[in-house]
Amino acid sequence: MSDTTTELQTELMAVAYRLADAARPIALRHFRKAATSVDNKHASGFDPVTVADLEIEQAFRKILTEARPDDAVLGEEFENTAGTSGLTWIVDPIDGTRGFICGMPTWGVLVAVADASGPILGIIDQPFTGERFVGGFGSAVMHHRGASRSLDTRNCGALANAVLFSTFPEVGTEAERRAFEAVSSNVKLTRYGTDCYAYAMVASGQVDLVIEAGLNAYDVAAPIAVIEQAGGIVTSWDGGSALRGGQIIAAGNADIHAAAIEVLQKTLAGTGA
Amino acid sequence: MSDTTTELQTELMAVAYRLADAARPIALRHFRKAATSVDNKHASGFDPVTVADLEIEQAFRKILTEARPDDAVLGEEFENTAGTSGLTWIVDPIDGTRGFICGMPTWGVLVAVADASGPILGIIDQPFTGERFVGGFGSAVMHHRGASRSLDTRNCGALANAVLFSTFPEVGTEAERRAFEAVSSNVKLTRYGTDCYAYAMVASGQVDLVIEAGLNAYDVAAPIAVIEQAGGIVTSWDGGSALRGGQIIAAGNADIHAAAIEVLQKTLAGTGA
Repeated sequence: MSDTTTELQTELMAVAYRLADAARPIALRHFRKAATSVDNKHASGFDPVTVADLEIEQAFRKILTEARPDDAVLGEEFENTAGTSGLTWIVDPIDGTRGFICGMPTWGVLVAVADASGPILGIIDQPFTGERFVGGFGSAVMHHRGASRSLDTRNCGALANAVLFSTFPEVGTEAERRAFEAVSSNVKLTRYGTDCYAYAMVASGQVDLVIEAGLNAYDVAAPIAVIEQAGGIVTSWDGGSALRGGQIIAAGNADIHAAAIEVLQKTLAGTGA
Repeated sequence: MSDTTTELQTELMAVAYRLADAARPIALRHFRKAATSVDNKHASGFDPVTVADLEIEQAFRKILTEARPDDAVLGEEFENTAGTSGLTWIVDPIDGTRGFICGMPTWGVLVAVADASGPILGIIDQPFTGERFVGGFGSAVMHHRGASRSLDTRNCGALANAVLFSTFPEVGTEAERRAFEAVSSNVKLTRYGTDCYAYAMVASGQVDLVIEAGLNAYDVAAPIAVIEQAGGIVTSWDGGSALRGGQIIAAGNADIHAAAIEVLQKTLAGTGA
């Protein structure tokens, strides 16, 4: 690895931490406050945007315009910004807005940097607990109130021993729900309501699988970097790239990943989906 | 209120805090450690007891034997201890053991004191986030890393505006699940995987309802005290006493409580349960 590359990595890491640092006070100023405004993005569904979401992404854009003006930016709240460097910042200021408005500490601030190969650096930050999960450039680490430790996924040995996380029991379409349930019925324990914290728990070796559908690119970029650097694997349900979101499976180890994908694909094929 | 009563209240509060303080380092020593042993209480199901659970209840028993020798003790892990004072300590060292072993900060340490009328003091403590939710003797308060604020439930105005929490989508029996789903289909948002943290969020005015089934007396005593002191209501699904556990509904306000109970009871009657 050349000195130039190392310098760039150091700079990207510093900017990523700066973004996560900037998000914390804004998020905490609005978390658990009754006055937090909630708008529905889609009149038909419940998809709130908090004031915090908008304020944080504005702060992100300001920092990136100044610190990394040649990089592209892909965010949840504003139009994408094109770049010339070949690097893209992929940010989701508050991932898990429903958890956020319920007062649960399962939401997170997601910051990632991708090159043509995919995410090369990711941060999942939980401002209320003070946890920061970071993966990139050959290391995966969790910082928590002054202490740090390395992140390592675990190998539970067999699907029957696995703990599976997902945000909603509904998962996605009817066919997606059935495929999810086929996996769920083969694992030891399934838990819901986990938002992006689920991916942090896979990276930490606490749980074995996350299976979700209907995700966006900005939901998965940071989790991909953190989990891959911690020894895990994140793909679409057919084993392809997870970069564009959609049907996502994250696993602590390749065998569990393969076993779960086999069940998903068999069930999807059986239901004609 | 007599001086004697106030002195007793102060003593009970001090002992309750002492129990919660004693639990924290034990719980945190085992939280997110791979070496945590898990035994199945029932060979047929997944009901783990962690080492932390046992160590904390042993610490509780030791403190109570010394500080309140005439009070009864009802706990999850050991035989009940009879008393002569008319007061009973109801403790659950780790409520939400499944959340605990998954690394989620939704579990809690539950400490309550009951007299013949029910719980008069309760603490829901979350050692990892550092939150302590306390209700008793006319006050409800949350302590968090040096800051304190009063707890107040909210009134969302109508069931259609309510946020509903439950630990599992399965809820209980098939009839119980259908009754739960009848309420769930009438609220704005339902979230799962919340463990005892759900009751703390009702007390905090973050959410409106918790509906669960199959609970034990030691699961509900502390939540009852915290929520009642914060302005909410906790009963069984038929509006009766929640003291013995079973089918439990907690609500931030009496109107929402009544509206949810009406749906539960109509559905249970319709299914012949």
